Amino acid sequence: MNAPKNAAPKTAISPTRAENYAEWYQQIVRGADMAELSGVRGCMIIKPNGYGIWELMQRDLDRRFKETGHENCYFPLFIPLSYFQKEADHVEGFAKEMAVVTHHRLKAKDGVLVPDGELEEPLIVRPTSETVIGVAMAKWIKSYRDLPCLVNQWANVVRWEMRPRLLLRTAEFLWQEGHTAHETMEDAMAEAKRMHEIYRQFVEEVMAIPVVMGEKPAHERFPGAVNSFSIEAMMLDGRALQAGTSHYLGQNFSKALNIQFQSREGNLENVHTTSWGVSTRLLGALVMTHGDDNGLRVPPRIAPWHVVIVPVLRNDSDKDAVLAYCESLRNELNAQIFAGAPVRAKVDMREISGPDKKWDWVKKGAPLILEIGPRDVEGGKVCIMRRNALEKGKSFALRAEFVSGVADELASIQKDMFDQALAFQKARTVADIKDRKAFDAYFAAENAFESGPGFVRAKWSGDPKSVETLEALGVTVRCIPLDQDGKEGTCVLTGAPATMDAIFARAY
Amino acid sequence: MNAPKNAAPKTAISPTRAENYAEWYQQIVRGADMAELSGVRGCMIIKPNGYGIWELMQRDLDRRFKETGHENCYFPLFIPLSYFQKEADHVEGFAKEMAVVTHHRLKAKDGVLVPDGELEEPLIVRPTSETVIGVAMAKWIKSYRDLPCLVNQWANVVRWEMRPRLLLRTAEFLWQEGHTAHETMEDAMAEAKRMHEIYRQFVEEVMAIPVVMGEKPAHERFPGAVNSFSIEAMMLDGRALQAGTSHYLGQNFSKALNIQFQSREGNLENVHTTSWGVSTRLLGALVMTHGDDNGLRVPPRIAPWHVVIVPVLRNDSDKDAVLAYCESLRNELNAQIFAGAPVRAKVDMREISGPDKKWDWVKKGAPLILEIGPRDVEGGKVCIMRRNALEKGKSFALRAEFVSGVADELASIQKDMFDQALAFQKARTVADIKDRKAFDAYFAAENAFESGPGFVRAKWSGDPKSVETLEALGVTVRCIPLDQDGKEGTCVLTGAPATMDAIFARAY
Repeated sequence: MNAPKNAAPKTAISPTRAENYAEWYQQIVRGADMAELSGVRGCMIIKPNGYGIWELMQRDLDRRFKETGHENCYFPLFIPLSYFQKEADHVEGFAKEMAVVTHHRLKAKDGVLVPDGELEEPLIVRPTSETVIGVAMAKWIKSYRDLPCLVNQWANVVRWEMRPRLLLRTAEFLWQEGHTAHETMEDAMAEAKRMHEIYRQFVEEVMAIPVVMGEKPAHERFPGAVNSFSIEAMMLDGRALQAGTSHYLGQNFSKALNIQFQSREGNLENVHTTSWGVSTRLLGALVMTHGDDNGLRVPPRIAPWHVVIVPVLRNDSDKDAVLAYCESLRNELNAQIFAGAPVRAKVDMREISGPDKKWDWVKKGAPLILEIGPRDVEGGKVCIMRRNALEKGKSFALRAEFVSGVADELASIQKDMFDQALAFQKARTVADIKDRKAFDAYFAAENAFESGPGFVRAKWSGDPKSVETLEALGVTVRCIPLDQDGKEGTCVLTGAPATMDAIFARAY
Repeated sequence: MNAPKNAAPKTAISPTRAENYAEWYQQIVRGADMAELSGVRGCMIIKPNGYGIWELMQRDLDRRFKETGHENCYFPLFIPLSYFQKEADHVEGFAKEMAVVTHHRLKAKDGVLVPDGELEEPLIVRPTSETVIGVAMAKWIKSYRDLPCLVNQWANVVRWEMRPRLLLRTAEFLWQEGHTAHETMEDAMAEAKRMHEIYRQFVEEVMAIPVVMGEKPAHERFPGAVNSFSIEAMMLDGRALQAGTSHYLGQNFSKALNIQFQSREGNLENVHTTSWGVSTRLLGALVMTHGDDNGLRVPPRIAPWHVVIVPVLRNDSDKDAVLAYCESLRNELNAQIFAGAPVRAKVDMREISGPDKKWDWVKKGAPLILEIGPRDVEGGKVCIMRRNALEKGKSFALRAEFVSGVADELASIQKDMFDQALAFQKARTVADIKDRKAFDAYFAAENAFESGPGFVRAKWSGDPKSVETLEALGVTVRCIPLDQDGKEGTCVLTGAPATMDAIFARAY
């Protein structure tokens, strides 16, 4: 096939983001060996590079949870239907998208295996665990001395999806869910806000993804929650992605599930609960924040490999010297400390060509890729490609200087990636749309990618009916940001008086 | 209630092991805050101390898997029935104990929620993942260059259990399952044996549980395997517990699932596969190897806390000095290195009495428990209880000496625990039973615990029919040990000529 005339410069990912955003996303996820859809309807396989990033995310988050007093437990995958029904809003919110186990064995019938052993009560494959954990807490908690009860679990959950989208919306995904119980509303609210802030810190500082912190409007709350807080990230197409949520559940679940305690005053009271979670969806956010037309870029703090060393061998006589140089270089790098842990450097020893290796790591997003050939060995140098600034091409450094500076370099890449994403988010957030006409025009415009819609920050009355008029635009109220100017104005949707700022956007 | 006359000495766990083994087991699991059965039929909750031990087990195993070239992935929870049916022995082996998802939502019917949205094809909740991973491998593997393919996943699996037993046999449990594909039988067999040996090393060196390495007889193989290797541990009641398995699957799955590759010679061939796994069942083995009448004892290498410091406060004026001493002591301990990582020391600051704290940690099995009161502060000392040798009571040491020696002390506890378990295993393994009469007498005797049946090592013809006669005794062939003397003898079951040694035991 001939290349079309005026073809864009060759990139590792085709189509480019500008050409076809949705397909670009798929190609990055595939090229970076992150995930693929499986033959099982709506379910994904998380592949080594994607899982490797997830493991580092888990490790960092887990440390933060433990430092704030939470303990990990593991609760059952299955939730009896009767548990699930106890909180009315909760079951209403999830009933349409749940996998239901009805049988516990198979039997042969006319030569075909069919379900057998019907259960007396159907079991729901957990879409979230408020109910099953609440039932356990009701047993564990007797007195104020048992509070706060602070647990977390790392688990898989299932929410049936008719239109799955790799890493973003799949029938099964991995997440953590924190569940806590407290003596008072104040304690529980403080917990919900504490975890909200921990998510912001993690997503911004570790994943280099800037977010807006806010509270969900009533109609967007978690089913059963009194207040839902979220962090909202802006993807490279201007859409919002809810990157984490923390809920104050009030006494809704504790009343439904009888989680009671004897108070300091000797009264029997219901606890106040919270729940909070982030999921493998964040891997999708990573792609749509840091991906470019050459593949994924991984912020150093969650990069499975910080530095990948590619030996460039021209003939067999070079081989021993080059490999010895690469291995000792790797060892020196592994002895450096970045962000409190050893630098993760590896030598790519696969039996494929040097350029194939290089482009493989470009697509996987390793922050620093070194090519080492005989001349580098002779000169005591390293040839460096910075994944973060591929367009600047290769540069050379003395080996010793590269090694001693590698932690600073990784820190600087981490910062640059965040700054770049923040600049994008700020540039695509508009705050000067004051009326419905301008609002509609902004979102209606089928502009080119570069100038398409992002976040609109504007006054909103909070009237739930005003939201219905947004459906045709595909726009939602993402959150009420925590930072409010408190000034009086008029609702951008209705023109009614309004003092509250809201963020409006299309969303994943 | 009055204590019975001649009551046994008071222990933290009641009943004692000698009084009621099954109940003793339950009480340890509960007292050590390891796990409990949930309200969900056959499913357990893994509680903080149990999960904390499991996390350390995971970390150690995961390092060993990665060091031997394996990468972690995550595959779907659900397996379409059609995948599962492809390997005949495999589906036969699991069909009787599987959770089957038949619907994907709920609807209200006469005010009651019922399953709705019937699936075209039922989904099996994975009891193991050979099929779903095999289907992925068939897609990934094209050439010998893609081999070996070495993946592992940490996951939950479900095997319906009518008679659940906490940590040992539950409908849902956590495990890791490694799945690999190779060019040749030799490569795959070497892999199966490598992982078998890694399990031995982990279980013996990290969990301090001695095992017998062997191969399963044909009738005990994993459904679909050509060879199944296991490590068999002896529990404190003399029963065997299969602590880990590694299977050479031949080309059974690769033929059923079409996992083919172009060989070095250019032919299309089927890969040879393996699978191997250990599960949270090992937590049950831990209890039944290291538990005593005061609770759990955790080997230092997997102890969530190596050293727990209990401040003993007599009055408020002591408080500041004692707590400051405890905290600086903890910091000094945390700076020590044991088994390649910092010592895990904590100060128990809960608002409960000193003795309550001490006995809580005895039941949870912390290797070293320190009590620190004002006199220890004055004298610059620590008062030490070794969980491993409670009967020896407390001892005192100079603080500086305790700190500098703590890593050695933990190593010595680790060794002592293994040696003690090994001595028990050896003492309860009999090798001098030569005929069926003695064999039956050994297993039939309803002896007191101390002299009850353990492992019988004897010649066996391998005749499958001979095994049927064991059913009434509740005894099984646990394995054909790897170390064989090769001498000729007669089958202990049938009297036929036999050269093969086998291990016979009752089992969990």
